[in-house]
Amino acid sequence: MGNCFFSQDKNTNVRVSLPAVCFVWEIAMVVLFGIFVRYNEEADAHWGEYKKTHNITTDMENDFYYRYPSFQDVHVMIFVGFGFLMTFLKRYSFGAVGFTFLIAAFGLQWALLMQGWFHSLDYSTGKILIGIENLINADFCCGGVLIAFGALLGKVSPVQMMVVSLFGVTLYAVEEYIILNLLHCRDAGGSMVIHTFGGYYGLAISWILYRPNLNKSKHLNGSVYHSDLFAMIGTLFLWLFWPSFNSAIANHGDGQHRAAINTYISLAASVVTAVAISSMTEKRGRLDMVHIQNATLAGGVAMGASAEFMISPYGSLIVGFFCGIISTFGFKFVSPFLEKHLKLQDTCGIHNLHAVPGMLGGFISAIVAAMASESVYKLTLPVYSAGTQGGAIVGLILKLPIWGDPADDNCFDDEVYWEVPEDEESIPPVLEYNNHMAHKHQDRCDSNYNLEQL
Amino acid sequence: MGNCFFSQDKNTNVRVSLPAVCFVWEIAMVVLFGIFVRYNEEADAHWGEYKKTHNITTDMENDFYYRYPSFQDVHVMIFVGFGFLMTFLKRYSFGAVGFTFLIAAFGLQWALLMQGWFHSLDYSTGKILIGIENLINADFCCGGVLIAFGALLGKVSPVQMMVVSLFGVTLYAVEEYIILNLLHCRDAGGSMVIHTFGGYYGLAISWILYRPNLNKSKHLNGSVYHSDLFAMIGTLFLWLFWPSFNSAIANHGDGQHRAAINTYISLAASVVTAVAISSMTEKRGRLDMVHIQNATLAGGVAMGASAEFMISPYGSLIVGFFCGIISTFGFKFVSPFLEKHLKLQDTCGIHNLHAVPGMLGGFISAIVAAMASESVYKLTLPVYSAGTQGGAIVGLILKLPIWGDPADDNCFDDEVYWEVPEDEESIPPVLEYNNHMAHKHQDRCDSNYNLEQL
Amino acid sequence: MGNCFFSQDKNTNVRVSLPAVCFVWEIAMVVLFGIFVRYNEEADAHWGEYKKTHNITTDMENDFYYRYPSFQDVHVMIFVGFGFLMTFLKRYSFGAVGFTFLIAAFGLQWALLMQGWFHSLDYSTGKILIGIENLINADFCCGGVLIAFGALLGKVSPVQMMVVSLFGVTLYAVEEYIILNLLHCRDAGGSMVIHTFGGYYGLAISWILYRPNLNKSKHLNGSVYHSDLFAMIGTLFLWLFWPSFNSAIANHGDGQHRAAINTYISLAASVVTAVAISSMTEKRGRLDMVHIQNATLAGGVAMGASAEFMISPYGSLIVGFFCGIISTFGFKFVSPFLEKHLKLQDTCGIHNLHAVPGMLGGFISAIVAAMASESVYKLTLPVYSAGTQGGAIVGLILKLPIWGDPADDNCFDDEVYWEVPEDEESIPPVLEYNNHMAHKHQDRCDSNYNLEQL
Repeated sequence: MGNCFFSQDKNTNVRVSLPAVCFVWEIAMVVLFGIFVRYNEEADAHWGEYKKTHNITTDMENDFYYRYPSFQDVHVMIFVGFGFLMTFLKRYSFGAVGFTFLIAAFGLQWALLMQGWFHSLDYSTGKILIGIENLINADFCCGGVLIAFGALLGKVSPVQMMVVSLFGVTLYAVEEYIILNLLHCRDAGGSMVIHTFGGYYGLAISWILYRPNLNKSKHLNGSVYHSDLFAMIGTLFLWLFWPSFNSAIANHGDGQHRAAINTYISLAASVVTAVAISSMTEKRGRLDMVHIQNATLAGGVAMGASAEFMISPYGSLIVGFFCGIISTFGFKFVSPFLEKHLKLQDTCGIHNLHAVPGMLGGFISAIVAAMASESVYKLTLPVYSAGTQGGAIVGLILKLPIWGDPADDNCFDDEVYWEVPEDEESIPPVLEYNNHMAHKHQDRCDSNYNLEQL
Repeated sequence: MGNCFFSQDKNTNVRVSLPAVCFVWEIAMVVLFGIFVRYNEEADAHWGEYKKTHNITTDMENDFYYRYPSFQDVHVMIFVGFGFLMTFLKRYSFGAVGFTFLIAAFGLQWALLMQGWFHSLDYSTGKILIGIENLINADFCCGGVLIAFGALLGKVSPVQMMVVSLFGVTLYAVEEYIILNLLHCRDAGGSMVIHTFGGYYGLAISWILYRPNLNKSKHLNGSVYHSDLFAMIGTLFLWLFWPSFNSAIANHGDGQHRAAINTYISLAASVVTAVAISSMTEKRGRLDMVHIQNATLAGGVAMGASAEFMISPYGSLIVGFFCGIISTFGFKFVSPFLEKHLKLQDTCGIHNLHAVPGMLGGFISAIVAAMASESVYKLTLPVYSAGTQGGAIVGLILKLPIWGDPADDNCFDDEVYWEVPEDEESIPPVLEYNNHMAHKHQDRCDSNYNLEQL
Repeated sequence: MGNCFFSQDKNTNVRVSLPAVCFVWEIAMVVLFGIFVRYNEEADAHWGEYKKTHNITTDMENDFYYRYPSFQDVHVMIFVGFGFLMTFLKRYSFGAVGFTFLIAAFGLQWALLMQGWFHSLDYSTGKILIGIENLINADFCCGGVLIAFGALLGKVSPVQMMVVSLFGVTLYAVEEYIILNLLHCRDAGGSMVIHTFGGYYGLAISWILYRPNLNKSKHLNGSVYHSDLFAMIGTLFLWLFWPSFNSAIANHGDGQHRAAINTYISLAASVVTAVAISSMTEKRGRLDMVHIQNATLAGGVAMGASAEFMISPYGSLIVGFFCGIISTFGFKFVSPFLEKHLKLQDTCGIHNLHAVPGMLGGFISAIVAAMASESVYKLTLPVYSAGTQGGAIVGLILKLPIWGDPADDNCFDDEVYWEVPEDEESIPPVLEYNNHMAHKHQDRCDSNYNLEQL
């Protein structure tokens, strides 16, 4: 096959590597699930006996009914929310939705195992016993990996993303264990555990994979009218279901109730302030879709760690108020600065939506819990370290010339990894011939072709 | 800046006014929430004690578990449903989704306060105590405002819509209090309280803001193929979750159960009859997307007031049957008539989907409850008055030349208030230069430009 | 009117037939609902008394709370999932979403009756007593009909689809009764009852309606970039909510819990293997959207029958693993073979997503339940017979020249049954005249026109 067209120096053919990775890892899952994973007492056919021996009078007390509606909302956020949010690029929407689908579907399996070993191991039998809460946590873990994908969007191959998932899920499980079980922190909505970790993990990888000539793909690094609308589907489902995200694994009763209320309120405030800052910083007060698609969500990220706390409705409002402002400023001013001066190419701006608001959420939670500043430091360190150091190592692995990543002039282009339809219908008949030629290039590798066709 | 390009006589620059309004109102929210809003006993950390003192044996009895799934469905309806339903215009989809996002996010905060003072005030402490039902009601209230937005779509500035929200939420809370608490009516799904009110409020504003030269923007007042598909996302999520809308605040147990069944059935019937009428009234029996997107929902609107009643499944079917017919006829014949003879410009046809079916819903509920016709009159009056009189006053306020609304030839155009991507990718290379010129106009204000470029 | 333009030999005018069918059938529904359908004890105002006489202490025990969240997910799958999955065709997206809407809204009413007579008839009063589980089952039944629609997509008129629904729902209710009540099988997620039945029903109809000259519409039988993205909305909502589909009518407690877990796991595996096979079978390892949109779902179909069983998490993983492979191979190799050699035109490839994985699901369930192979045979026979024989008869009915189906050169074209906007905005100004002409053809029937305009 070779790499005749897509680049002078890159082979983007993944016909061997992608199926190989998928099969090897999936077979490993089957084996490991076979050895380790069983149903927990609430999902097992012995639930009837369990109820009797534990004096439970109704099936309604099965944790399934407390958490399943929230689980489904979280599930939508991970696949539709993250997936569609990243469709904003004009010609990378297949990759955004499709690779999200792949890496989250793989990642959740590995997460069930990794998190299971840490949190759901039955020591008497050596089995991981899973129930609805494990599914939620596995989805959360994929959320962390997908945040990292946001920084890398358009610049990596699906094989690389499988590697990012494998290591990301592993690191996530470790840092989560440290934060929740060793440091005994609450972080029901994962401000630190999910967002800050995922943010720094992705940024570190992106920093290592810096492409000095990325501007060769500049013409594809932007949106078109309808791709921005597809992205709004992602934004809205994230925004709407975030109360479920932050309450899904909170305590039964007032814990879940309060977490949902706090998140609902915080998010409402961040929409209003994100709009205000967006309008202030653009010509004629025009709104920028990037801000509306992203910064409006910052209130949800920051409320993650303290959603369960008695932070008061006005406390939530204040959190959303400032995070909407900070995040929008980040998209407008910090990201360009980071790209220029720190060589940090962050396609979706995860620094502004996840890394920073997540960190803020950690601080807020520390303030509310009246922690000593030393404790706060000890708390943030493992997350930051796991993210950046883990990300740096993964980044170096991804620099090996075996993963099929695109050349600088083929970034943000679905034609590298997808069969893309020709869209001739949107072009009027008189132009059909020209257009046919212009779009034909994806097949050029496989035949002799005349340079004049370019 | 000035108003050099977008109009001869209108300044659409909202760079000062929009951030100013957003910040002033959001800061007011923070202050008022700080003074007034607290968690209710089911969302408060004292829930444990409350359970004991009230002999509640399980967290499952927390109202959260009765209502949260329905709340999330309603939440999706307000933001995705209303937002995407209005994306049908070919070049106002950003405004449809984005302004829906803004005004509902602001509106729900103000609604928590306004409705809280009327319904959830703890007189001993002077605090509003909120729980999941307050969130649902706040979303409902935003629904009323968004209905009004439907009549105004494309013709108002975001600043004006913030004004419409502020007054709309206030009026809503008042008329709701009169209907539910003073007149002791049931209207769980808000036929009257939400739809009729929102409908007449929007129509009155639109009537005051009549634009005799709106046909200057006629070329943008229509759909394209994919914008109609985006609108169907809105339609379907509204249609699918309407059983949750009408059952969300119904009584526990059979009340919620029955409200969901009645709404499900009524909506199914209105799809079939809307299709029938749409086909009958078009050439060759072709269906009109406007009817499918809107009139199919009429059965849900009309069932609002009587969803909880023992109206029988066939009763619901009859309601949907006739409302699908009436609404489709409205879109086909009544709206053009109103525009021509009553100078009523109603972008989304809310008269046919909300005002009329909502009123019908009120009558049906009165018939089922065997009310005297005098009572019916007393019932509809406050809703109609609040809507039309309130709307007229708000309309007059919006006529002040300070709100940045678009000129007649700039209506239905996202470029006025949004940074719109250039979409050059969809146009074949040979046309790039022409297209570049054609699309460049949004930047023309800021430099000398040559008229020949037009 | 006549059929001047759309075909030489077909009249696609449905202006009489479509409204007539809609009205006749909807009036029949009103009458039959009036005679037969009432609320069951949990949706009836007598629920309060029922609770007392049955020693139920809380409204939470109302089946509504066990099933409503899953019902809403199923509801989304039927209308958004199936509807949008079929929008992949470049110019049949209105038909995909709109006809799904129509036939499911009609079908669920008829299903409430048909399934009610078989399963929910109160013999003392002769009434069908409905509750939330009936709504779920009615949606399931529509799922079967929509699967059949997948094979016929673009080649039939809406009137024909109403006929397909009427007979499909009827046949479904019969085969379901045989499988569940006479043969006493469990099939909570409907591998056999829904997917295999719907698959063979649709394939049989399509086989009878074979069009030898369908390649006249070949240019429309494909996707464009954004239509593939719309289809992914359908795919994802199907994939995400499939755990609800398979658990919605499972037993309370561990049954629903386990069904959700098994389905979640199986689906995750089928994504990874579908991607692997898709990449293996395409040039340069590029992924094919058809596989990602469809084969990723095969794990959910196959888990339907055994979702409730103690199949173990690794069992579910194995099911998903193989079904993802088999389904992708089906799309790549079997469908073209069937079309060429068996004259089976299957627009959406339901053979690979529903018929085969559904059958596999039946076998898996038989293996898990340790059934004799003779029993398996007896089990599959009624489903297969109802599907193919019923489908063949319906196909013959649909061959009557009265249904307004499109000619071979008008298949996959929304302009036959829909008012389609002209989309002139997406084309640059210099081409407006040409384009105007090109798109004007939908009105040509109604006036004299000059052939030179073509």
